[in-house]
Amino acid sequence: MKPQREVAVIGVGMTPFGKYPHRSTREMGEEALWEAMTDAGARPQDIQVAYGGYVGMFMDLPMMAIQVALEQVGLVGLPITRVENACGSGSSAYREAWLAIQTGMYDVALAMGIEKLTNPTMDQIRVVRDYGGGDREREGCMGIFPPGIFAMSARRHMQEFGTTREQIAMVSVKNHHHGTMNPKSAYQKEVSLEEVLESRVIADPLRLLECCPNTDGCAAVVLAAKDVLHRFSGDPVWLVGCGQTSGTYSGKGEFFMSEIIQSSAREAYEMAGLGPEDIDMAEVHDCFSMAEITHYEDLGFCERGEGGRLVEDRVTWLGGKLPVNPSGGLLCKGHPLGATGPGQIYEIVKQLRGQAGKKQVEGARIGLHQNGGGFRHCDGGCSIVSILKK
Amino acid sequence: MKPQREVAVIGVGMTPFGKYPHRSTREMGEEALWEAMTDAGARPQDIQVAYGGYVGMFMDLPMMAIQVALEQVGLVGLPITRVENACGSGSSAYREAWLAIQTGMYDVALAMGIEKLTNPTMDQIRVVRDYGGGDREREGCMGIFPPGIFAMSARRHMQEFGTTREQIAMVSVKNHHHGTMNPKSAYQKEVSLEEVLESRVIADPLRLLECCPNTDGCAAVVLAAKDVLHRFSGDPVWLVGCGQTSGTYSGKGEFFMSEIIQSSAREAYEMAGLGPEDIDMAEVHDCFSMAEITHYEDLGFCERGEGGRLVEDRVTWLGGKLPVNPSGGLLCKGHPLGATGPGQIYEIVKQLRGQAGKKQVEGARIGLHQNGGGFRHCDGGCSIVSILKK
Repeated sequence: MKPQREVAVIGVGMTPFGKYPHRSTREMGEEALWEAMTDAGARPQDIQVAYGGYVGMFMDLPMMAIQVALEQVGLVGLPITRVENACGSGSSAYREAWLAIQTGMYDVALAMGIEKLTNPTMDQIRVVRDYGGGDREREGCMGIFPPGIFAMSARRHMQEFGTTREQIAMVSVKNHHHGTMNPKSAYQKEVSLEEVLESRVIADPLRLLECCPNTDGCAAVVLAAKDVLHRFSGDPVWLVGCGQTSGTYSGKGEFFMSEIIQSSAREAYEMAGLGPEDIDMAEVHDCFSMAEITHYEDLGFCERGEGGRLVEDRVTWLGGKLPVNPSGGLLCKGHPLGATGPGQIYEIVKQLRGQAGKKQVEGARIGLHQNGGGFRHCDGGCSIVSILKK
Repeated sequence: MKPQREVAVIGVGMTPFGKYPHRSTREMGEEALWEAMTDAGARPQDIQVAYGGYVGMFMDLPMMAIQVALEQVGLVGLPITRVENACGSGSSAYREAWLAIQTGMYDVALAMGIEKLTNPTMDQIRVVRDYGGGDREREGCMGIFPPGIFAMSARRHMQEFGTTREQIAMVSVKNHHHGTMNPKSAYQKEVSLEEVLESRVIADPLRLLECCPNTDGCAAVVLAAKDVLHRFSGDPVWLVGCGQTSGTYSGKGEFFMSEIIQSSAREAYEMAGLGPEDIDMAEVHDCFSMAEITHYEDLGFCERGEGGRLVEDRVTWLGGKLPVNPSGGLLCKGHPLGATGPGQIYEIVKQLRGQAGKKQVEGARIGLHQNGGGFRHCDGGCSIVSILKK
């Protein structure tokens, strides 16, 4: 599975993530898109194809937000397609933009992700009822929803490998620490291990500060083929490997998402000709503290069962050997579903260019992005992994 | 914009379209997918990438239906992505499947479209409130919704070109006549011109029998690159041109959708090296009787203003020079939003293979598919046109 063309990210943009009930999708889309195009040195007429990713259950109309957001910046007359893969939506949009360039029919593509999860008139209960329950027909009726799934994963990891409660909570301490250095993060406040462990129980053993907050935001990415890079001033970061797998999360008694994360990571590593040992920094989908622990293992950053130690030994902290979620991750920066993937790419591109400010990972040249979506324990979801290189 | 690989549709499947409040998305997905794969002579493990299109506002959870439907037939471990472009969703899924093969990274792709618009517990008012209003913020508040938009289009066409009320209504008479020969059509009953003109007013001058019904259904398409066709028994129909444009519908004072339909048709014709004069039959998006009239004009089947005469002169009837919507179209076969596009491809493939039964267009070798979505008059939508050739 060898891609035919070398493709780079040449521009990134994102709004601050956070609770912005009064910001419209139009307004957020405009801000992130202009930032990405300005960063790329691209004008609206340079964009040949565009993809927008979002879940959109709490926005006005599915397709419309994309159309509107793109029209706010004058992208008219090109193919624009919304893609949706639950929380992985924005990463699928980015992957489709890359695939469109791989066809040879397009040279410059735009991917954006957006989400509104707060709203002045919104019934917050609807989030839980309509989305939190995952597959209502088979699983919602049993009370299986995201915090519960990751709580079960935590219990089993603790039992099987001796992972401690503190190690799991430390993921949140770390990511909040990183978030204090990110002006676009929803929160910029340290939390102590005690604060995490004493916050309100959501799904035992997971506590409030181990669950990502509902947030709003938009992020966008401009990609271009190598042969047209001379037309743009944006500092290119190469997209050297990209894998996507859909399937069951835990079909074979594995941890949540393990199987598809492993296979999408394998695809990305093989395409890039790189391995986990080559990664300088990563942005992963830490929707819950526990998720980050098994992601370390599934991405090959350590052996199965060693994830807890990785965070305890500060390997994945800024200053460690392999900083993970220097942006603050979903736990602190926030998780506006569709915007999360392009938001991860934003951070990686800034890091690899040396533009990450106080949270800069020194000498970072290779970054990994992992995102995914789908709640159901039995019935599946998707995982996307990509590798970027300066 | 030259595609790099020759690609064919090798299998098609669809459920009957109609009001099936008690059929689940899982069940409908399973039926259409197995039919398409059986028709292609493909096994689940032959499919390398899949796209699913639907609007999904009245289904359980957006991404999930795809995952489930695909898992019902054993498609696990490949990239599966939902795409959504309002009523054009299924055609965008089909186009993305074709693009995926154009990357050279995949040889066999599946596209499906599905929709549930009736539901045992559904509040039908919600359809109008949540979807029918289009962009509530800018247009819904003014009462602009699909029947109203096409009613305005009808009024203007009548005024400007002398198109008659009878000509417009005749589209529905024709499509219902065609539908009597289609066992998968929601209705199989002739309607007379008088019945159409005397049915209840929806948006003056359009009457009930000139508006497509809310329906449920699923349709699926298997595509493959020329170099792997020897592995499959499915009778190939070549996808020789495909265009998609997003943009404003009526920005320059044109008729509804004109601009983007024209540009996506131009792209498809140029890619195929064919023109409107080469088309033997077409399936177009007749959501309202009036829509089909301007589609004739925008697709180049006649000059602007001549559309009414085309149907009156029976050119677009079965037996005429260029039969349009021999399946019954959206007006009679039904319009399960996401399923509509792949349902159109289903009909064209059957026609070009000579498998269309009583409604067979004699000697049909080249077929055109036109679909699109998005309601807003000012802010845009998308149009997809593709050309298939035996």
